[in-house]
Amino acid sequence: MKPLSSTARTSLGRLKDRAQTERSALYDVLDEGRICHLGVVVDGSPRVIPTGYGRSGDTLYLHGSTGATSLLAEEVCVTVTHLDGIVLARSLFHHSVNYRSAVIYGTPRSLIDDDEKLTGLRAITERLAPGQWDVARLPNRKELAATTVLALSLEEASVKVRQGPPSDDDEDYALDLWAGVLPVQQVLGEPVPDPKLRPGIPVPPHIG
Amino acid sequence: MKPLSSTARTSLGRLKDRAQTERSALYDVLDEGRICHLGVVVDGSPRVIPTGYGRSGDTLYLHGSTGATSLLAEEVCVTVTHLDGIVLARSLFHHSVNYRSAVIYGTPRSLIDDDEKLTGLRAITERLAPGQWDVARLPNRKELAATTVLALSLEEASVKVRQGPPSDDDEDYALDLWAGVLPVQQVLGEPVPDPKLRPGIPVPPHIG
Repeated sequence: MKPLSSTARTSLGRLKDRAQTERSALYDVLDEGRICHLGVVVDGSPRVIPTGYGRSGDTLYLHGSTGATSLLAEEVCVTVTHLDGIVLARSLFHHSVNYRSAVIYGTPRSLIDDDEKLTGLRAITERLAPGQWDVARLPNRKELAATTVLALSLEEASVKVRQGPPSDDDEDYALDLWAGVLPVQQVLGEPVPDPKLRPGIPVPPHIG
Repeated sequence: MKPLSSTARTSLGRLKDRAQTERSALYDVLDEGRICHLGVVVDGSPRVIPTGYGRSGDTLYLHGSTGATSLLAEEVCVTVTHLDGIVLARSLFHHSVNYRSAVIYGTPRSLIDDDEKLTGLRAITERLAPGQWDVARLPNRKELAATTVLALSLEEASVKVRQGPPSDDDEDYALDLWAGVLPVQQVLGEPVPDPKLRPGIPVPPHIG
């Protein structure tokens, strides 16, 4: 696999030790997330909206119907963040968070070809609701036409990771204070059936 | 409380029924989050970075030392998103997510006054690590000088919420498919002590 890009904006100026340079680190962050935050410039102002995404190889697919049609053929920034822990240090200054984040820059293509759109939607669905692509009713022509799917090349990206215990100033270790990490996790609960679910349909194994 | 703003970009063009207009809805979303995604325009391109924040009254405080010093006195967009569930419909087209999100626009002030900086840092700390402000070592002058805190007025903001079961097309309810919601939650784990923790210091009650 080729390494991650090293353009000025993807080479971290600060806290360089948190930067990951392996492409696999990018895939790891992306393949564990459920939503991304999509940044666009609208009339010169920044706009950040949450949306679904999926990855297939070196392409990131974005669900683009989030009132974001203005962003077609414009540069975007896509950020996926996992908050892994709250780092409780002895000094407030060294409080921090454990996290993994990926930041991707590029100009997405809006998909026109139906097959490519389906490929993108499948990747997005597999990320958010694995297994559903194989069982739910597939999009018909009209639905496909009403859905915007963007494809973004994973050319220019950076990954930052902080893990582990707090890093306090030497003299603060003598303080009579607890320090450590409070882990944070995103978990799935028990499936809640649709009130309109027909009787006798069990929860399928891929759901829970 | 005054209502939320209704500028063009905070009045939702699409899916208007998801918009909340009460200011309290904004506070609810903000007061339950741990990180925000901060959007800025750098050299004409969008950039989205995760960072800590906190609220006090009608002011949002942002931890600005995330390599984002270039954003001082520039317009920003701050987005806080809670993913609450994955909505599994009978058709792929109606798959969705349950979420609560807040989008805030404005030009932040970089705080200079030490007291105001401490107020902002306290709000940020209380959001991420409640109770720690009262026990951990407070920032000294040098640390305070090295910390950038931004204050953003909560003047222009929008809140979107989707909750509840899937909404399928009428004819799809006859399909022999499970449908419902898979709840998603962010949970805290058991505190992990710093390996360098002095012996005999118990986990304080406000932590876990």
